[in-house]
Amino acid sequence: MSVDAVDLHEVGPREGFQYEGIGRPDFISVDDKLRLITALTRTGVRSIEATSFVSPRAVPQMADADQVTRGLPEVAGVTFAAIYLNARGLQRAIEAGRYQIEGRIMFTASETFSRRNQNRGHDEDVLMQRESVELYRAHGIPVDSGVIMAAFGCNYEGDVPLRRVIQLVEQIAQICEENGSELLRLQLADTMGWADPMAIRRAVAAVRAAVPDIDLSLHLHDTRGTGMANLYAAMESGVRRFDTSVGGLGGCPFAGVAAGNVATEDVVFMCERMGVTTGIDLDAMIECARTAQEIVAHPLPSRLLAAGAGLVAS
Amino acid sequence: MSVDAVDLHEVGPREGFQYEGIGRPDFISVDDKLRLITALTRTGVRSIEATSFVSPRAVPQMADADQVTRGLPEVAGVTFAAIYLNARGLQRAIEAGRYQIEGRIMFTASETFSRRNQNRGHDEDVLMQRESVELYRAHGIPVDSGVIMAAFGCNYEGDVPLRRVIQLVEQIAQICEENGSELLRLQLADTMGWADPMAIRRAVAAVRAAVPDIDLSLHLHDTRGTGMANLYAAMESGVRRFDTSVGGLGGCPFAGVAAGNVATEDVVFMCERMGVTTGIDLDAMIECARTAQEIVAHPLPSRLLAAGAGLVAS
Repeated sequence: MSVDAVDLHEVGPREGFQYEGIGRPDFISVDDKLRLITALTRTGVRSIEATSFVSPRAVPQMADADQVTRGLPEVAGVTFAAIYLNARGLQRAIEAGRYQIEGRIMFTASETFSRRNQNRGHDEDVLMQRESVELYRAHGIPVDSGVIMAAFGCNYEGDVPLRRVIQLVEQIAQICEENGSELLRLQLADTMGWADPMAIRRAVAAVRAAVPDIDLSLHLHDTRGTGMANLYAAMESGVRRFDTSVGGLGGCPFAGVAAGNVATEDVVFMCERMGVTTGIDLDAMIECARTAQEIVAHPLPSRLLAAGAGLVAS
Repeated sequence: MSVDAVDLHEVGPREGFQYEGIGRPDFISVDDKLRLITALTRTGVRSIEATSFVSPRAVPQMADADQVTRGLPEVAGVTFAAIYLNARGLQRAIEAGRYQIEGRIMFTASETFSRRNQNRGHDEDVLMQRESVELYRAHGIPVDSGVIMAAFGCNYEGDVPLRRVIQLVEQIAQICEENGSELLRLQLADTMGWADPMAIRRAVAAVRAAVPDIDLSLHLHDTRGTGMANLYAAMESGVRRFDTSVGGLGGCPFAGVAAGNVATEDVVFMCERMGVTTGIDLDAMIECARTAQEIVAHPLPSRLLAAGAGLVAS
């Protein structure tokens, strides 16, 4: 195995509360959200995505972002993150005062998905990102990070050419340079679950060829069953950072069809079996998945939640 | 990718009907079983495991094995298989006249699981296999094939040492030689879903070191979420034959906890994305998974069944 340790960024609360709340914004209470987040802080996970600062008109189930923020526990060694899709959301995330903010440029490799998810195409996105850059600079946050959504395929457009992804990476790198920094961290998101292990390997190689020392992370949805194979292939390619979701919570409200990210506990199990350190207590994470399942009140896709990690009494 | 084509042996009917019928032997009618099997013959799959010739006292839901056999369609290019755990079952499978019978020695790498699944330990198993060998020889079937169950771990015993697996492989090879043949084909079964991609790679390498030109196949349960990653790792190691299960049907009644095999349609999707030929029509297989789900009347674990393989209208 090419890596001996991985760093898992827990996105279950944000992904799950956003997805489960579609059409029923009050379905999950702030108390339940904070109950899961607090339990997650006790698993050994170091970074938790807690909420989204997005339009309450477009995503009413995230209208409680400020309330969730106020209830976040203070836990040594655990940082919180939030997502945002424009400068207005970024402003709220900065003002909230509890989030690790990266100077991050976000692009989408599929024009159709961009219009559905962010309500704008790429050219408009470039203009919008300028506003975010102004804010980052005003707050002394170096612009050195990028995200490319729908990097492996799109439910509306089908295949996304790798050269398009690399164009976007180069565009992000240029924006970083124009702002006196360099692109240090990049996330490729398989937002709609079209990646396969070979596509992962090709993308990792192409990104490294374009930006040699990049710290790469992957956000892998398990929509079509390839999530764990993709994660393993990425680890074999030396990738050490992944988004994962407790219980496999989540999906994307604007993707038509999308299952959640790979389940954190399933990833921890596979890593443990391979001798790859995660720093996460597997039993505590399975217990969190149980809490998540209780909160959403329907079976979650996690395998460990059903099977457990222990032996059966004979 | 190390392989350009794979051969998928469809085990869903046998695995699924056996598992779903636990405690309710008449739950799935012979007509429904034959409906699914007949649909599967139209997908391009070349080999289908249709039933088990096992004790109707121990596994009452398989008491209809002869009825199922009589109803099997004749389809050019499609062969049927059945499983059996002793000479009595083998005799029935041979007499049924519709099954591809391999001269196969089956051992179990976990003593505890062997006692639960076959109601005997390894030493007794060796004696039982002699009876099967007599039958194979009487019917002119060369003894040249082996299966090792619980080859990667056991719900009761935990880790299964690889040296134990290799001991069993060598024992099988010796039995083949004693009977004037040589060990040509071997299946390693992760009956209870404990394998991980590195364990797969180690096992494939060790088996090849012991029996260099062996034609290896894997039977991978997705009990703890590693099934697809294990399959990908095996393909990277050059393995070309896998058992898969339509819809992810199945599990093992004597394993305490076990999910079904990796879902055939999820495997076909991943292979197609990687340019690996399966000969199977993905849409037809998804349709079979839908039929299987309708028959068992509860959601199956297949991802493609939920997400589909096509684009979403924008």
